[in-house]
Amino acid sequence: MKYAVGVDLGGTGIKIALFTAEGEIVKSSEIKTRVEDGGKHILPDIANEIRSLLAEAGLSSEQILGVGVGVPGPVVDGRTVLSCVNLGWGETDVASYIEGELGLNCKIGNDANVAALGEAWKGASRDTHSSVMITIGTGIGGGVIIGGEIVTGFLGGGGEIGHAPIHPEVEGRVCGCGKVNCLELFASAPNVAANYLAVTGKEMSCEEIFNAAKAGEEAASKVVDDMQQLLGKACAFIGCVVNPEVFVIGGGVSQAGTFLTGKIQEYYDHYIFPSIKGARIILAELGNDAGVYGAAKLALDEWS
Amino acid sequence: MKYAVGVDLGGTGIKIALFTAEGEIVKSSEIKTRVEDGGKHILPDIANEIRSLLAEAGLSSEQILGVGVGVPGPVVDGRTVLSCVNLGWGETDVASYIEGELGLNCKIGNDANVAALGEAWKGASRDTHSSVMITIGTGIGGGVIIGGEIVTGFLGGGGEIGHAPIHPEVEGRVCGCGKVNCLELFASAPNVAANYLAVTGKEMSCEEIFNAAKAGEEAASKVVDDMQQLLGKACAFIGCVVNPEVFVIGGGVSQAGTFLTGKIQEYYDHYIFPSIKGARIILAELGNDAGVYGAAKLALDEWS
Repeated sequence: MKYAVGVDLGGTGIKIALFTAEGEIVKSSEIKTRVEDGGKHILPDIANEIRSLLAEAGLSSEQILGVGVGVPGPVVDGRTVLSCVNLGWGETDVASYIEGELGLNCKIGNDANVAALGEAWKGASRDTHSSVMITIGTGIGGGVIIGGEIVTGFLGGGGEIGHAPIHPEVEGRVCGCGKVNCLELFASAPNVAANYLAVTGKEMSCEEIFNAAKAGEEAASKVVDDMQQLLGKACAFIGCVVNPEVFVIGGGVSQAGTFLTGKIQEYYDHYIFPSIKGARIILAELGNDAGVYGAAKLALDEWS
Repeated sequence: MKYAVGVDLGGTGIKIALFTAEGEIVKSSEIKTRVEDGGKHILPDIANEIRSLLAEAGLSSEQILGVGVGVPGPVVDGRTVLSCVNLGWGETDVASYIEGELGLNCKIGNDANVAALGEAWKGASRDTHSSVMITIGTGIGGGVIIGGEIVTGFLGGGGEIGHAPIHPEVEGRVCGCGKVNCLELFASAPNVAANYLAVTGKEMSCEEIFNAAKAGEEAASKVVDDMQQLLGKACAFIGCVVNPEVFVIGGGVSQAGTFLTGKIQEYYDHYIFPSIKGARIILAELGNDAGVYGAAKLALDEWS
């Protein structure tokens, strides 16, 4: 029997899971991301944790088809991440390290792209023609999957939907990337809170604002509706570029469920070019595991 | 020696060209599109013209790898166009007709998508990782090419960039598609003229407005600049979805040359997510032949 390893490398934690080639999780673990010292402990920690996991499962290297890794930065060639600000990394050849250290095949991808691949493999967008995942949390990430494959882009920017310039400039509001029109700047969790603060003068978390909106509170409803309109319009724009069968909404804010997605769907249907109306806006299904699923699939697509 | 036939079916004319498998045009012709009687003469006309072309070139069916056809409507499966308003067509199985009539393999695609494929094969975007073509004329069409292939989309909407909802609504301005935020509604040739009329009260063609802008006329410069800004912003949005290596600008308005594309590039560079800055905005090279090139390539990719 053959297996693959999926690694989801985040700014605070690293998830590692051992998969059968069919996509069942056999064993998994999570370790802390040690970002100190320029992040130099991270790759050795991952290698050690993979060794332990294989030992616990009683597997030899020969039984592992490959290791896939989702990393929080742009990836162009499947091997090197150009930078990971959260990890203190500059350009880092993750695949060569893992291959050299463990003697296993390794392929890497951008974390949001890889999560989209995970959902397309075993989650909400399985068996679809094409999908775009939008992950809404502290920021907005995304991934475009066509024909079962990640659209990486020329410079690793495929699915960087959070930085799509969609909103008119608002005085004093600047995105972490330095730009002023980003989707993320108005529709991510902290920015929903900022929108609410700007209107009401009250500090509430995005989750609290969604709960208030569910309860019918006027200002919260307006702020949530504005966010849904912007997301629906962004999806309609994306629809005119790659026209996916489904949009998968994930990330912490997707806990709001169909209260979130229902209105995004309405705005999508309103804004989309009528000839191609028909895509569905659905909720992600794999939660925090989307990354390890997608990472394992990256490896399986390459070596199985 | 093997050949392919490329057909570009437009609302007023039909271009047909016979290509070598390497992409040299051996013979070509153009006939009028007879849209009368619900467009029922169009396919027989195409079949007859292909027969004549092969006879003139002294070629037998066995030497033809296939026929590719670009059609002005959405295509999902490579065979059937869902509707062609300009031709009076409802759903039409073009491939089966050509195959039945001529005994040749046939594959079809949306005309703007096919033109993008032509530019990626032998034109401005040859040898690129990925490209998005934007054709600016009476309307705005487009095509997305990744890994040498057209991104068709689930419902044939890949590259329908003219209908991307990007502009804020303007009272009284409605796109042919019924929507009010379309890129095309503000940046196509007739809409540039409408923008100029709205500002100055003067009727000028898009070409005249570009000439006035080149000569430094203030209102024309402003209208052209607004259009370039909108196009640059649209390209930056597309960059955050598929991140192509190049954007190819074609269509009648691209006659304005780098006077058009230079400013689109500036606005693109201004709006694009800084981490993925680097795409080039370039002029199409194949002019009205892009369609026949791309159509022939469709067939060659399938049967050579």
